Amino acid sequence: MAQNMTLLWGSGSPPCWRVMIALEEKEIKGYKQKLLSFEKMEHKSKEVMEMNPRGQLPAFKWGDKVLNESYAACLFLESQFKSNGTKLTPDCPNELALMYQRMFEGFALTQKSGIVIYYNYLVPEGERHDSAVKRNREALSAEVKLWEGYLEKVKGDYLAGSSFTMADVCIFPSISYLFHFGLSMERYPKLAAYYNRLKSRPSIKATWPQSWLENPQSSDLLKDI
Amino acid sequence: MAQNMTLLWGSGSPPCWRVMIALEEKEIKGYKQKLLSFEKMEHKSKEVMEMNPRGQLPAFKWGDKVLNESYAACLFLESQFKSNGTKLTPDCPNELALMYQRMFEGFALTQKSGIVIYYNYLVPEGERHDSAVKRNREALSAEVKLWEGYLEKVKGDYLAGSSFTMADVCIFPSISYLFHFGLSMERYPKLAAYYNRLKSRPSIKATWPQSWLENPQSSDLLKDI
Repeated sequence: MAQNMTLLWGSGSPPCWRVMIALEEKEIKGYKQKLLSFEKMEHKSKEVMEMNPRGQLPAFKWGDKVLNESYAACLFLESQFKSNGTKLTPDCPNELALMYQRMFEGFALTQKSGIVIYYNYLVPEGERHDSAVKRNREALSAEVKLWEGYLEKVKGDYLAGSSFTMADVCIFPSISYLFHFGLSMERYPKLAAYYNRLKSRPSIKATWPQSWLENPQSSDLLKDI
Repeated sequence: MAQNMTLLWGSGSPPCWRVMIALEEKEIKGYKQKLLSFEKMEHKSKEVMEMNPRGQLPAFKWGDKVLNESYAACLFLESQFKSNGTKLTPDCPNELALMYQRMFEGFALTQKSGIVIYYNYLVPEGERHDSAVKRNREALSAEVKLWEGYLEKVKGDYLAGSSFTMADVCIFPSISYLFHFGLSMERYPKLAAYYNRLKSRPSIKATWPQSWLENPQSSDLLKDI
């Protein structure tokens, strides 16, 4: 079924990882895929730009349908493969509402993590300010505390309750990312327990970034967050 | 059906507007709603913070279901009121894929508009740089050109093709916003035609920001974008 699907991806990128988890959960096999290197700027190559004019990964195509946005790819795959593999959208309205709410709050988490982790990449040298770094770190800290609180209150092992849903597909990679950059497991025990519980899930294990196996934690940038 | 729905909103805010358009399209009447003032910082009031800990509008609740994220509210309303009013998610897989893809590309448009329009609000005085303003404006210009190109190529009057979908619910407010801040209709004729076509749609007319009636264009900040 997936012969005409093509995924260009980069290792360790949460958006790419989301799509790969969704493909695994929906048991979609045999798609074409190609690992590209951010370091070598392959996400700006002609091959990518033709599929994704923003020059970002993933670049994902299914026949003539373009689904480069990871959330779009995940929701569309779920809509077309409803009865394949894991059901990723719960029937229970309360869980479904919570799933959607957490999924979209994920954009705040991603944005606030990104500006801290990639500050020097995103902001040219002459425009950097310690005051901005401090403010960005405080904003990330407040954001991470919100998520710790959500996991403290939720009834169940997953972000939207008792079952693994699209919220976990979308948010787990972002949470892993925080720990990869040194977030303290002691300071955020609920997030750490969630992370440790899900990292052995088959879809997540199968798609775990290769470079992270060698280097589970790449820096301690976030240790004081 | 909507007696236990509460919407706290601010006028002219695209996220609030999305939810209001979705409510209109799904013919949901009788919900509680309250207009708050960003200028008076009412989005940071206790009333809002209790519903939305980020202190943002909309703050939207349906019974005990919290749906503050506008995309979450829209998708959840569609899921629960499938046969009410306008069907906002097409059955045709090509249109559905395009709908999701455009919806989520909308985050890039919103982010790139926001940093140009609210630069002085978002960046403290000592951290502002002309080089950043220039770069942000160039990024917005490239982004707006992408959307002009999408509307040039799409087969139909709407973002995902021949029918009004969730992509229009989510993106129309962001496009209106650009014109409200002076984007050139001459430079972007397809976006202008889309804007002019949709602004008389009943759901959009009924929810048009009151202050924009008096002041259709509030500044010419984006006229050279």
